Parts: sequence; structure tokens; C-alpha cells
Amino acid sequence: MGLIVIKFGGSSLSTTDKIKNAAKRIISLKNEGKQVVVVVSAMGKTTDQLLELAGQITDSPEKREMDMLLATGEQVSISLLSMALSEMGAPAVSFTGWQAGIVTEKIHSNARIVDVKIDQLRERLNEGKIIVAAGFQGVTEDGEITTLGRGGSDTTAVALAAALGAERCLICTDVTGVFTSDPRYVPQARKLPSISYDEMLELANLGAGVLHPRAVEFAKNYRVPLEVRSSTENEEGTVIEEEASMEKNLVVRGVAFEKDMTRLTIFGLKNEMTGLSAVFSELANNQIDVDIIIQSQTDGNKTNLSFSIKNKDRQAAVKVLENQKDTIGFDSIEYEAGLAKVSIVGSGMISNPGVAAQMFQVLADKNIQIKMVSTSEIKVSAVINEDKMTEAAQILHEAFNLGAVVENF
Amino acid sequence: MGLIVIKFGGSSLSTTDKIKNAAKRIISLKNEGKQVVVVVSAMGKTTDQLLELAGQITDSPEKREMDMLLATGEQVSISLLSMALSEMGAPAVSFTGWQAGIVTEKIHSNARIVDVKIDQLRERLNEGKIIVAAGFQGVTEDGEITTLGRGGSDTTAVALAAALGAERCLICTDVTGVFTSDPRYVPQARKLPSISYDEMLELANLGAGVLHPRAVEFAKNYRVPLEVRSSTENEEGTVIEEEASMEKNLVVRGVAFEKDMTRLTIFGLKNEMTGLSAVFSELANNQIDVDIIIQSQTDGNKTNLSFSIKNKDRQAAVKVLENQKDTIGFDSIEYEAGLAKVSIVGSGMISNPGVAAQMFQVLADKNIQIKMVSTSEIKVSAVINEDKMTEAAQILHEAFNLGAVVENF
Repeated sequence: MGLIVIKFGGSSLSTTDKIKNAAKRIISLKNEGKQVVVVVSAMGKTTDQLLELAGQITDSPEKREMDMLLATGEQVSISLLSMALSEMGAPAVSFTGWQAGIVTEKIHSNARIVDVKIDQLRERLNEGKIIVAAGFQGVTEDGEITTLGRGGSDTTAVALAAALGAERCLICTDVTGVFTSDPRYVPQARKLPSISYDEMLELANLGAGVLHPRAVEFAKNYRVPLEVRSSTENEEGTVIEEEASMEKNLVVRGVAFEKDMTRLTIFGLKNEMTGLSAVFSELANNQIDVDIIIQSQTDGNKTNLSFSIKNKDRQAAVKVLENQKDTIGFDSIEYEAGLAKVSIVGSGMISNPGVAAQMFQVLADKNIQIKMVSTSEIKVSAVINEDKMTEAAQILHEAFNLGAVVENF
Repeated sequence: MGLIVIKFGGSSLSTTDKIKNAAKRIISLKNEGKQVVVVVSAMGKTTDQLLELAGQITDSPEKREMDMLLATGEQVSISLLSMALSEMGAPAVSFTGWQAGIVTEKIHSNARIVDVKIDQLRERLNEGKIIVAAGFQGVTEDGEITTLGRGGSDTTAVALAAALGAERCLICTDVTGVFTSDPRYVPQARKLPSISYDEMLELANLGAGVLHPRAVEFAKNYRVPLEVRSSTENEEGTVIEEEASMEKNLVVRGVAFEKDMTRLTIFGLKNEMTGLSAVFSELANNQIDVDIIIQSQTDGNKTNLSFSIKNKDRQAAVKVLENQKDTIGFDSIEYEAGLAKVSIVGSGMISNPGVAAQMFQVLADKNIQIKMVSTSEIKVSAVINEDKMTEAAQILHEAFNLGAVVENF
């Protein structure tokens, strides 16, 4: 008998009516003759409410206690959803993270799963029960409650699918699948029937918030076929698997973009060797994420260093670096805010070296100036002025023929 | 080093400000050089909110899932209180029921504690940490989450105190201690400095809601000295221990009372042997609690049977019995609503056989008619008209000299 893992996020469970709707979806899967394991997040705004309570008590809660607090959110969801399933005639049994055997590292607030002990789950599945497991949470070997950080429930679902040998892991969410681009900006964007793990990883890292990169990576490592689909509408979603079997002739699979970026440039960095690590250690210690990094030689002794950060981190970044100006050793800092990053993603690029050049040409044709560039094997990103972002996304979407529906073959 | 277990109920933790106040109380205990284990209930109305959510999903939730749901309430409390303690400089660590080693029977919603595994707690106590443990919840040997039913957090506190050999178990609550009677009805009522387990048991069973009878029984069995005191005011409460050392000369220790009672009488019950058990089985199967029972012989073949129930159960009780009239075998049913029960409690009664007679005389002097009577070794209860309840409580309080402060000797 085939086994399906199906995951519902918090917004799909924000009211008891939505929980009942999720129960109906689950029962229809069960009625197809599948064994079903459901993974759930905390209901709607529960996590925010718990954070608010903690905030009233302390600005610096211990991570262990925060995990203890937040883990209650999914525990409420699993019990209510199990009640809804049983009420509709489908016997279900809820499992917290520790009961489901989700064993993690001894790290609070951002633990990685190290083992999944499935005996209890198997036993209940064999009794014909639907399993409703808490996402986002686990337990250390010592019995301490941990949480998995952002995207944690997706990771739980993939981990359970891998451990139980599920035929598919369904991620039910607000959107109906993975799109060639964000339809709010690119009206021609359409849903992809399938995409490879690597492409999805790049898109996820580029902020296409459908799936957390960690969950995609887990799925890739364990070869778990994923499907992203709508939690409310009953239409096919996007399948993420090793080789996206369809649309092989498409070199580029998606266009992603991100606003609110700043380019920061350090002029006259004295020592390339120690300077680089000093700069990025300082920023990392202050929780400032750096995206694209470009280093350019100016003369024999000094270099200029540019990197992109979020607009919101700009003040802190400048302050942190100015404070260490003598230690790091540089001449001056300049920045340019109001930038955006536009990226094209597709595993076909590996065998098509002209893709980046084509992208730059398309942008140049519209007089869109490129400020920074970053590439990987299956991705090209360009930093441009924010007011050109939507236009750039649209023309790239068109230039790489992403709006066209391609026949399966 | 002495160890104290201190328990806070939900109303003492209903806001984050109250949680901070509780933290201050705990730290002052710690500063007296004690090891401290705190047991907490769910915050204020949390349990009601969770019940409301479940009620939106089903009228008949499975008990297992209800336990799963309700157990989140205390988990929120333990994490927030631990944060508050750490924020104030007192390192604390939270424990769910299963982490604290509270092992129960395999019964949901009303499990009894069968074992307490204290290794983890001892280890953390020896590190100098304050333990904050979730009340009301436990775990079966199979790893199923259970709850302990009403008064469960009190029972958790007493069980931990017994297992850890605590020198005292403090129950912090809305009232400042155990009173000779309810001060809202009997203005002369005063706080008792001490009371015996048995007396407290009778008072608790009579509805003096300070402590749950189960917790008192547990404390009695394991000789755990209990103290009931205010969660906000720093004054001495009432100590419950084997021999109430003070006020030995007082025969009666308290006056309790209860409103909203109905007396139901079955006339002409045909067969005393089968009839009695048939009546009370029917009522028990329909969740109708029976209090005082009086059986009176009328002639050789038939008996009359009177018993007291809650007003709210009257309709159901009459219907249940009328439906089984032929099976049980009786002539008719009558009832009298609008009654109340007044009780006097005191272990001194054992050696003072005239106490019941004195009680009846006091009531008779005021023309208060007694409808039913029930006695135990340390209690006498009389059922009277509800409109005489307050008067009866006051005159009994006065007649047995309960308002007088007695010197310790």
C-alpha cells in the first residue's frame, strides 16, 4: 500500500473551519487507498502570539525555553486535526515531535534532524490510522525539546517521507505550485508541472518562498519526490524530482527577483588576505547577511570590495565596519541603496554557455544597467536599479520563452 | 539543603505580570537557601480557550487528543515562568510532565500517578537550578500524554514533594489559607493555622475548593506537609499535617455548606436487594452524582429511598428512573428542590459523641428543619432549606466557638 506524507502550513490551519477542510483533503487521499502521514505547523498567528508573550517577559529568552514555548503551537494543531479526522469517521492519532521519533542535534531554535525512529508510526499506520505529526519540532537524545528553525515543518515532512519510504511528499500551501516567476509582477508567469531539486534549491534560495531550501536539500539527498500544491484547490501542483521530465528543451526554468537591496563598497582595502575575512566576520557576528560579493584589484597593494546586503542592514553594516576601520584597514566606504536582484534559474544552463550573455544583452537592450553579477552552474543573478526590477523580470520571462506552455513529451 | 515544592494555579499566572510576580516569590524562597521545584497550571483562561477550539470541531473529542491539546497549556506556563526567573537572575529550567518523570496509568483525562522518576530533576537541582514543572500532566510507560483530571496540578505538586522528600509543599492560591467557614457567608470565619489531613479531606469533599481531595489524600498517604497560602500576599497560610498541633481543644474545626440540592424520594421500592443497585447503577451510568442516601423500611415488602442530588441533575434523574420504572420496580417518585447541605467537620468529634446532637439542637432552636442527615467519624451533614443555609452556617460557627482565636499551646 502506497504511503503519502502531506504537509499543511499554518495559514491552511488558521481556523477550525480550515482544519476541517484540511481533514476532508486528507480523507480523500486515504480513500484512494493510501496510508497517510500528515505534518502540520502551528495554527495561523499562534507563533506570533507566543513570541509576543515571551517578549513581555524578556528581550533575551533562553533558546531552550523558547523551543519549549513554540513547540506548543503544533501540539494544538495535531490534536485538533486528529479530532476533526476522527469526527469525520477517519481514525487518526496525533504525535508530537518526540513521539514521532524526530531526533535532532543538541541545538536549540535551529536544530537539524539526525534520525527518525519510525517504529511507533509504523505500528499505528498498520492499524489503519492516519498519523498527524507535529512539524518544526524534535527531541534530542537527552529528551530536550528542540525546534528546526524556519521552514522546519517542510523539513519534518520530507524527513518522515524519507524514513517511511513514502511515494510522495505533498506540501500544501497558499499557492498552487511553483511558478516561472511571481505572477504579481509577471502576469505571463505560469505554473511549472515539474522542476528539478537543484532548480528548486536555487529558486528557494532566491526567495521564491514556496519551500525552504533546507527541505529541498533534504528531499534531494534522500530522493523524496516532492509536490507543491494548493491547500484549498484540488488541482495538480508542481512536482520536484531528480530530473524534471518535462520541458527539457527549456534552458531557463524560472525568473526570481528580490527588492530592498543595497550595494556597499569598501575602497582601498589594505590587505586582501586578512581584510576579506575581517570584513565578513564582523558582519556575520552582527547577523548581517551578505549576498553577492565582488572583489576588484586596483593596484598592487589595495583592493576594492563590493557586496550586496538588505537595505535594513545598511546602517548597522556601515557602523560596524567604520568602528573597525583601523583594525581592518581601508580608506572609505560608499553605498548605493534602492537596488534589486533579478535571477534566471535552469539546469539547462550547464550545457548552454551563452545564457548569461543573452541575459545581459536583453537587459542592455532596454538600457537596464547591471551593477553586480553572480553566477552558479544553474543560475545567473544581476543587481540592477529597483525601479527597473519588474520590467527586467518581464522581459527576461519573455526572452526565455517561459510563458509558453510546452507539450509533455 | 531543604527542598520546597511550590505550586501556582492558573489564576496566579493569568498575565505575564502575574508570572513575574510569581517569579519574585520563588526567588525569595531560593534566597532563603532552599532548593525549589515549582509546579504550575495553565495560564488563566487558556484551558477554556482550548476547550472552545475543540468544541468547534467535535462534541465528542477523543480523550487521548483532548489530553494532547490541554497539555499545551502548562507547557506555555513553564516556559514563560522559566524565562521570567532567568531574566531576574535565577537560572531555571522547565520540564513538561513527561520530562519531569510523572508516570501515570494508561487512562486519558483522569489518570493517576503511578511513579515519579526524579533523576533528571535531581541532576538539575544539584546544578543549582530552579525546576519549573508542568502540573496536571503525565506520560504513560508507552509515551502517551495523559492528564490528571480536576485538581491535577495540586496532585503533581504533592507527588513531586513526596518523591523528592521535600520539607514542605506550598500550594499558592487565591485565598490566604483554609478558613473555619466561607467568609462571604460567615463574617466571623477566620483562617486556621493548621488542620489535619482527614479534616482537610472532609472539607475538600464538602466543596471547600481550596485543595482537591485527591491531592490531600496523596499528601496524607506520603506524609507530605502541605501549606495553603496566598499567591500574592506574603502571610502565613494554613498548614495541613498529620496532627493539627494547635487548637486541640476545638472539637469542630470548620463549617462547610453547599447550595442547589434536591432530595429525590422513591416510594415503594419493591426489592431492596436488586432495587438499590438498579437505581444507583442507572444514575451512575448517566453521570448523576448522588450524595446522601437514606433508606427507610415501610412494610415487609417495600422500602422508601431518599437521596440528594444537584438541582441541575433533577430532570435527568427523574427521567432515567421513570424509564426504568418496571425494571427497577417502584410505585412513584417525588422530589423537593431548593435545599442545601450544612456540615461541621473536626477530628475531635471522634471522642465527643454529643457533637451531632448539639448540632441538631442548635438548628432546632432556630426552627431550622432537618430533611436528611449523614455522618462520618469526623463530620456531620444536615440537609435543610436553602433559604436557611447562611443562618445555619453562622449559628453553627458561633455555637462551636470557631470565631475565637485560640492561643497556641
